[in-house]
Amino acid sequence: MSININRLMNDINELGKIGYVDGIGTTRQAYSKSFYEGRKFVEVLMKNAGLKTNIDKIGNLTGYLEGRCNEKIIAMGSHIDTVLGGGIFDGALGVLAAIEVVRAMKEAGYKNSHPIEIIAFNEEEGNVIGGTFGSNAFIGAGFDSVMLSKMTAQGLTKEDFYDSKRSSDNYRCYLELHVEQGGCLENQGVDIGVVSGIVGILRYKATVIGKSNHSGSTPMNLRDDALEKTCRIISEMMEAVRTFSDTMVCTVGTLKVMPGEVNVIPGTTEFIIEMRDVNLDNVLIIIDKIQTKWCERGFFVEEYIKQGETFCDEKLMKIIENSTRKIGYSFKHIISGAGHDLMNMAKFTPSSLIFIPSHMGISHNIMEFSKKEDIFKGARVLYETLIQIDKEGRINEN
Amino acid sequence: MSININRLMNDINELGKIGYVDGIGTTRQAYSKSFYEGRKFVEVLMKNAGLKTNIDKIGNLTGYLEGRCNEKIIAMGSHIDTVLGGGIFDGALGVLAAIEVVRAMKEAGYKNSHPIEIIAFNEEEGNVIGGTFGSNAFIGAGFDSVMLSKMTAQGLTKEDFYDSKRSSDNYRCYLELHVEQGGCLENQGVDIGVVSGIVGILRYKATVIGKSNHSGSTPMNLRDDALEKTCRIISEMMEAVRTFSDTMVCTVGTLKVMPGEVNVIPGTTEFIIEMRDVNLDNVLIIIDKIQTKWCERGFFVEEYIKQGETFCDEKLMKIIENSTRKIGYSFKHIISGAGHDLMNMAKFTPSSLIFIPSHMGISHNIMEFSKKEDIFKGARVLYETLIQIDKEGRINEN
Repeated sequence: MSININRLMNDINELGKIGYVDGIGTTRQAYSKSFYEGRKFVEVLMKNAGLKTNIDKIGNLTGYLEGRCNEKIIAMGSHIDTVLGGGIFDGALGVLAAIEVVRAMKEAGYKNSHPIEIIAFNEEEGNVIGGTFGSNAFIGAGFDSVMLSKMTAQGLTKEDFYDSKRSSDNYRCYLELHVEQGGCLENQGVDIGVVSGIVGILRYKATVIGKSNHSGSTPMNLRDDALEKTCRIISEMMEAVRTFSDTMVCTVGTLKVMPGEVNVIPGTTEFIIEMRDVNLDNVLIIIDKIQTKWCERGFFVEEYIKQGETFCDEKLMKIIENSTRKIGYSFKHIISGAGHDLMNMAKFTPSSLIFIPSHMGISHNIMEFSKKEDIFKGARVLYETLIQIDKEGRINEN
Repeated sequence: MSININRLMNDINELGKIGYVDGIGTTRQAYSKSFYEGRKFVEVLMKNAGLKTNIDKIGNLTGYLEGRCNEKIIAMGSHIDTVLGGGIFDGALGVLAAIEVVRAMKEAGYKNSHPIEIIAFNEEEGNVIGGTFGSNAFIGAGFDSVMLSKMTAQGLTKEDFYDSKRSSDNYRCYLELHVEQGGCLENQGVDIGVVSGIVGILRYKATVIGKSNHSGSTPMNLRDDALEKTCRIISEMMEAVRTFSDTMVCTVGTLKVMPGEVNVIPGTTEFIIEMRDVNLDNVLIIIDKIQTKWCERGFFVEEYIKQGETFCDEKLMKIIENSTRKIGYSFKHIISGAGHDLMNMAKFTPSSLIFIPSHMGISHNIMEFSKKEDIFKGARVLYETLIQIDKEGRINEN
């Protein structure tokens, strides 16, 4: 066993200090001074680990290690940008653990057959140009006019975007280690989450129409209170989601009540329903059920955002399971409710995501925390998985 | 039968034109040009009816008719100011019908024993200084510092307020005819509402505390969604109100969801609960029930406005009932959910309120409408009630 957990923890803590403000957290937003400082820190770590580094036009940092047989690349990584006032683990763990895995591998005298590339993606969080922009450019997924204007504001051109695209022909697979950002693993006392997929997202603009009237002179039995109906709809929808599926989640994060006066019965409400699941067909069943029940009573929904589901590679998942079992850790299959660079990478090369527990599920927050022993377990599983893949040769080609 | 309904309808329509804008409605806010124009119109009607008019310092218009025996005054009236873009019946009906009653009485050759005074209150709607300000000054109820600064802005002094106070010793009773502003009478096909009281009002600032978290990575069973709890609380509260009482109403007209982002589970909600009932003790029972059930799950309420209940005079109610029965109209006891000048007048002299149906309960709106035949019925009942009181002599003194 060759993972040096103290060295890895030191790297995590040192990178976490870059952009850190007491009481607020770590802020390394893409294209900011602290981001560039953090990337420099990681670049030095890569070089010290014997990797040949490169920074593409849109800001992704990669570190490359030749393989003995000059086969396709096994990639590992995550992102090193953060939200405003974020934690020190989200993203950073996947990059720094990958560097530690390479260091440990070399120290153990293991000669890798495949080339290994560690990727520190830029702008996963989407505060500047758009979510998972770095990996988007890496696989050449594309941009829209809104993103283009934000790119321009950062001095980036279309050509920079196109130049950053890699060829999927050169890649064997992609592995990402990440904190769960949810409370399932901790709650169930499980060491490792073998992620089977990332949920798809559907967002709906919802409207409930009632009848605005005087709050004093309108008795309860003559009311058509838009907010009361909204409350029943939301309660029923949440109940339906809980009953229907363990994987689906439903959030109403914004709600506007009109006309919004204390002595006027609400005539209209507007709110956003966000539904996520590994199977968006299930979301449609729930929405259809609620809509059918309530449409004649003034409930209208309109889909306005759809992001498809991502499925992790099953063969890679098996290898991760075997690695975990071999070391003696517990694992469970888990769905990622949050988005990751893997959503892009899975369209590019067989990809898989490994989770370690997040304390209380807190993330995007100064309180984000994962235990040293859990980080150690995650890094060991990543190491073991890398070696298995490297030894087993071709993935997904039989 | 001597009420001239066409003459009365003409007065209502003519007054309704003053301040009227197509598509918006009638606007005669207190102390505005259109208010003064409307008051002038009413003053002329009073004079033509043989009443001696007076305008007090804060703007209330009265028209006085001597009685044969120089006894205490029987007062009738309502207000002639409106909300922004209101209807033509709210307030105006009570003043103009009272003038028609006096005209009809004179034409019928009836010689009144008591003096009769018709009052056209100023600023009932409360858009300028405060709700029922005119009748407040009339009875000398008082003002606070907020009202005083608004009075000053209108060029009114404390002395103007004090000078407008009348002596309750001079009054026998007060009668107000008004549109229901609710849908009960129309809904039940009843001609006349004999109002037994005006509801008291309690307003609460409510807060629900949950736990804000990532909308994707937090499964439903690990959530503490403040909005979901709020929806259940509001639904249960509405249900409890409906089950407990026919007279209580409950409105949540404003609701703030925090942090208010589509992909963040709400951590806090803030909203105002308004409860009205003829018996505020019943409101306390409901609030206590909901609070007891939910307080350990983060629900907090704080009372911040309390306006007591008003009870109409029972002997006057009997006289109104007898008058209605005599003419052959149907009636029912009804609670007023909206406030009226009668809330002040009931503290001053025995008072009673007569309602006629409002189409669809719509009020404070250009769509406000009451049928000609219902107005006719209301004016007839007011006439008959006045005559009964005048003949029966002393009210509430045995």
